[in-house]
Amino acid sequence: MKKISRTSPSKIVLLIIDGVGGLPHPKSGKTEMESARKPNLNRIAKDSLCGLIDPVSPGITPGSAPGHLAIFGYDPVQYNIGRGVMEALGIDLELKPDDIAARGNFCTVDDRGIITDRRAGRLATDKNTKLCRLLSNIAIDEAEISVLPVKEHRFVLILRGKALSSELADSDPQQVGLAPKKIKALSPQAQKTARIVNEFVSQAKSLLQGKAPANMVLLRGFSRRPDIPLISEIYKLKPAAIATYPMYRGLARLVGMQVLPGGDSITEQLDSLRRYYADYDFFFVHFKSADTRGEDGDFRAKVQAIEELDNALPSLLSLEPEVLIITGDHSTPATLAMHSWHPVPFMLKSKWCRPDNVAEFSERACLAGGMGRFPATEIMPLAMANALKLDKFGA
Amino acid sequence: MKKISRTSPSKIVLLIIDGVGGLPHPKSGKTEMESARKPNLNRIAKDSLCGLIDPVSPGITPGSAPGHLAIFGYDPVQYNIGRGVMEALGIDLELKPDDIAARGNFCTVDDRGIITDRRAGRLATDKNTKLCRLLSNIAIDEAEISVLPVKEHRFVLILRGKALSSELADSDPQQVGLAPKKIKALSPQAQKTARIVNEFVSQAKSLLQGKAPANMVLLRGFSRRPDIPLISEIYKLKPAAIATYPMYRGLARLVGMQVLPGGDSITEQLDSLRRYYADYDFFFVHFKSADTRGEDGDFRAKVQAIEELDNALPSLLSLEPEVLIITGDHSTPATLAMHSWHPVPFMLKSKWCRPDNVAEFSERACLAGGMGRFPATEIMPLAMANALKLDKFGA
Repeated sequence: MKKISRTSPSKIVLLIIDGVGGLPHPKSGKTEMESARKPNLNRIAKDSLCGLIDPVSPGITPGSAPGHLAIFGYDPVQYNIGRGVMEALGIDLELKPDDIAARGNFCTVDDRGIITDRRAGRLATDKNTKLCRLLSNIAIDEAEISVLPVKEHRFVLILRGKALSSELADSDPQQVGLAPKKIKALSPQAQKTARIVNEFVSQAKSLLQGKAPANMVLLRGFSRRPDIPLISEIYKLKPAAIATYPMYRGLARLVGMQVLPGGDSITEQLDSLRRYYADYDFFFVHFKSADTRGEDGDFRAKVQAIEELDNALPSLLSLEPEVLIITGDHSTPATLAMHSWHPVPFMLKSKWCRPDNVAEFSERACLAGGMGRFPATEIMPLAMANALKLDKFGA
Repeated sequence: MKKISRTSPSKIVLLIIDGVGGLPHPKSGKTEMESARKPNLNRIAKDSLCGLIDPVSPGITPGSAPGHLAIFGYDPVQYNIGRGVMEALGIDLELKPDDIAARGNFCTVDDRGIITDRRAGRLATDKNTKLCRLLSNIAIDEAEISVLPVKEHRFVLILRGKALSSELADSDPQQVGLAPKKIKALSPQAQKTARIVNEFVSQAKSLLQGKAPANMVLLRGFSRRPDIPLISEIYKLKPAAIATYPMYRGLARLVGMQVLPGGDSITEQLDSLRRYYADYDFFFVHFKSADTRGEDGDFRAKVQAIEELDNALPSLLSLEPEVLIITGDHSTPATLAMHSWHPVPFMLKSKWCRPDNVAEFSERACLAGGMGRFPATEIMPLAMANALKLDKFGA
């Protein structure tokens, strides 16, 4: 891809409707997409090449990271992002390549050190913030330590220093009735880091004494930023992202996108797209609420989220991007109230796409599309081809 | 495949319509295939298993070599054929396994040796022929040198000798205003060959002095014939090729096909098929003009090329081959006037295929075919199975 990609003035807009795919409502027999009034999405489908994507592979329910990375063209199994790094991305933290990140929980232990509540009674976030400030006082030779609050009982631990390793087992036993485990090195190179982290835990325990329910910490998902080739290197694109939620901004930054100011609504996001349209040639726009409503199990609200998006589309369409792709990172059927493994509707509109006979943007309709069912990692080559940004392969 | 293939009297005919896939005409909304009157192709589709092939992978526009190699069953990325070898195949040259081939340009340089025209004013071919004869006088120890004219400013340089390597960088900087680069070895083993080629270039420069506009040479795409397993070995077939253009004959020879005399028209090609029908069990017939007309951007002429082919088909059908496959090596939409990435209609007719509901040989119709969209490398196993030339796999 690196060898055959080339720059050109044409623009690619990739709109990801988080969790858009669904399942039929038991009463109507129609999915959320089939139930929504969405004249703009349907009109685009009529002029598009349609299909259904598998973000990871059939039967596999993707987290947000693999779902997005696959659409961005990365093998989501090869570039598996650790829990610690995801948590850091989620609070807009920019990690350096050698930083070690871990997801932390404040928890409750009894007199014998046995865990009685893994979430410290879902601590209030302001208390969390104060405790993180307290733990940030911990100083250990050989590593700079940061403890940053996330929400409720959750925090991020960052270690910065020389020759640190993320090959560490979790301290979190993932159940009550056990003591937190001592951090074990999973490779000889990680022994120094294990020593540092155990020292941190021991000092944290002392500082938290008497602060029940938050009188101990649990750590898991030690990881570092993956060494991932940038979109600008692979595709020679100048990419930008417009996303309301920090985790998606973090993912976008990870693959080298410039994060643009967004705003809270899709209308504001599309206003931002218009404002910066001249400055970049690839735009990732992330629309979150279809997923949130799906996870709430609220079928009607998810339908409304799709309608809200449809309603905002004319502003995007008036920009006439050379390539417009609309899809989702996974399905979140309201009937399941969680991410699911079902393939996700996809459409690509360009002057050079070969339109099929699909005239509706929905799960069943896209099945008859020109792409059929296909892996999400094939989206970027298709986008590049349709933007006439790829040279011929081979003589 | 080698382990389960077996010989049998049944015949496989593979008809490749070069560049057959297309895009809708802006006025009619119909592609070239959809616009053509093609009763024979449609009748075959009705009895066939249909689908759409990706020659390389979605979004990738194949050159002629990868497009054909994939249909012949070879991974087109693994067997990537260099520019020099392709140029040699294009003038019907039989390369030995260790020959090094490079594509050459006669070019114009000024007094300071700076390139002012990379194509020497598109030199007349007869002048090219004379200059190639002149350069063939160059004698260098350790390698036998041949310089063979192609067309206009293009020639092929062949080096034959012991321990030569093709791991050389181009001398052609691909732009005017620069001097030709000294040939650099890309591996220690290639140093001797680099020395030989630089000596050739230096002698060529002397011989061409005062012959402006053709007063210098540029070389690129150093390559050797890939070490490719033969069709006869993998499939135990006795394969033959009928192709009008030398490059396709060269490709066929590369994979071990016997090249049969063809003639200029599809009617003559099919006469040749009839004449040799008893002597082989696999025939590759190459029909070129759909691609040529597509590259010309002439929608109407491409439609006519498809109609011309359709018209000639009864002669082929009367042979009643056990397996008949009709497809293309890539799309060449007249609206784009170049090779493209769009998948290509495919059909396979045999007594044992499982026909689908497709009754028209076109892009949109084949989408509903029994094979869906699939990689071109799966064609050969399908052909073999339908010819009952494959044993069961496993107990």
